[in-house]
Amino acid sequence: MSESKKPEGENVEVFWHKQAVPRYLKEQLNGNKGCIVWFTGLSASGKSTIANLVDHKLHTLGKRSFVLDGDNVRHHLNAPPAMLREKHGEEFAKRFGLGFSAQDREENIRRIGAVAKLFAESGTIALTAFISPYRIDRDRVRETMSPTDFFEVYVNTSLKICEERDPKGLYKKARAGEVKGFTGIDDPYEAPLHPDLVLDAGHKDADELADEVIFFLKSKGILS
Amino acid sequence: MSESKKPEGENVEVFWHKQAVPRYLKEQLNGNKGCIVWFTGLSASGKSTIANLVDHKLHTLGKRSFVLDGDNVRHHLNAPPAMLREKHGEEFAKRFGLGFSAQDREENIRRIGAVAKLFAESGTIALTAFISPYRIDRDRVRETMSPTDFFEVYVNTSLKICEERDPKGLYKKARAGEVKGFTGIDDPYEAPLHPDLVLDAGHKDADELADEVIFFLKSKGILS
Repeated sequence: MSESKKPEGENVEVFWHKQAVPRYLKEQLNGNKGCIVWFTGLSASGKSTIANLVDHKLHTLGKRSFVLDGDNVRHHLNAPPAMLREKHGEEFAKRFGLGFSAQDREENIRRIGAVAKLFAESGTIALTAFISPYRIDRDRVRETMSPTDFFEVYVNTSLKICEERDPKGLYKKARAGEVKGFTGIDDPYEAPLHPDLVLDAGHKDADELADEVIFFLKSKGILS
Repeated sequence: MSESKKPEGENVEVFWHKQAVPRYLKEQLNGNKGCIVWFTGLSASGKSTIANLVDHKLHTLGKRSFVLDGDNVRHHLNAPPAMLREKHGEEFAKRFGLGFSAQDREENIRRIGAVAKLFAESGTIALTAFISPYRIDRDRVRETMSPTDFFEVYVNTSLKICEERDPKGLYKKARAGEVKGFTGIDDPYEAPLHPDLVLDAGHKDADELADEVIFFLKSKGILS
C-alpha cells in the first residue's frame, strides 16, 4: 500500500478503500445486537428510572447499552437557546436552540432518534427516555430503523399517578399556569397505538419493570 | 421497593433514585477509556480512511470504537434541507437542515461534538472524520471535554496532493466555480495550532498512519 510502489491512479483507489468494521462484527464482540429501546410516557411516569435500571442490569450481564435522556441530551446536543447564546451568539441560539414549541419538540426527537440510531449501529442497545408525546415523531424514528431493531416501550402510568408523584413540582406549576405547554395538562400526550411492550409503571416497581424489559430483549434475540 | 409497602413520600424518593452505571464501569467492561479522537484536515486528506483503519485495528484488539463521518452523519443527524423537506416541511427544513454556510458548518460541528461526547461517555473511542476547517469550532468541542479525553489529530496532507487525488472530482468542480465555498479553494482551512498528533498523510500510507494513532492512544493510557 506504499504510495511510491504503485502508479498514481491505482494508489488513489487503494488509499480510498474504506476498511469499515461492519455492524455485525461489533455486535459479535459485544455479545448483543444493537437496537433502540424507545421509552415513551408522561413526565414522572418512570421512563428514566426504568431505562437506567435496564442499563444497570445489561451491564451486569456484560452487555453494551447506553441511556439517552434529558440529563445528557438537553445540556448539549439539544440545548435550549439560553445555553447556546454566550458561545454562538443570539441568531445562532434562536435558530438551533430547542424550546418546547411543536417544531422544537419535533427536532428534539429527530436528533435523539438519529443519535440513538448511531449507537445501535455501533452495536449498542440505546435506551432513550423522553416523553416524546407525538406519535408522528416516534413513528418517524421507527421508520429509519429495521423492524427488528426498534422497540417502542410505553411506560403506561396514569396522569393521576404522575401528578401525585410530581417529583419536580412541574405538574403543580403547570396547573397553576406557571409552566405552559406541559404534556398531559395543556399539551397532548399521544399514547402508542402498537407499542412493542407496555409497562404498568403506575402499579409495579421499577426493578420489576426493568426485568420485564430484559426478558423482552431476550425474547427478541438482542442478548444472544 | 413496592409502592404499597411504604408511605407515599418515601416511595417517591426511592422510585426516582437513578441507578446510573458510571462511565468508569463501562470503560472497565470495554477494556478501554472513552474519548474523542478528532481528525481534521482538507477534503481527500485521508481522514475517513485512517479513522476507519484505526477502528478496524481497535476492533481487532477487542476495543470499542466508532467512526462518525459524513457517511453516517450527513444523511440523518446533520441532513441537508433537501433531505428534511418531504417529511418535515419547508420551514422546518430551512431552519434545521444544514448546508455549507458558516453558521451551518458551526452547527454541523457542534452537533458532531455533542454526539462524539456521548459516545465517549458510553466508554467508546469516538473517531470523528470531518474537515472541520474552523479552529474555533474544534476548540469549542475540546472545551466540552476533559484534556485527557479529547485528542485533535491533524491529517496534514498538502492542498496540492489532495487536489491531485481528488477522488470525487470536487476540487476540479471548485476550481471551475461549480462548487462554492470549498475548503482550501475559496473557503479557509485553519490548521490546528497545537494538535495532539500530526499525521503525514501526504507521504505515508494509511495503514502506517493508523498504527501511529494506535501507538498514540496506548501512550495516553486509553487502551489499558
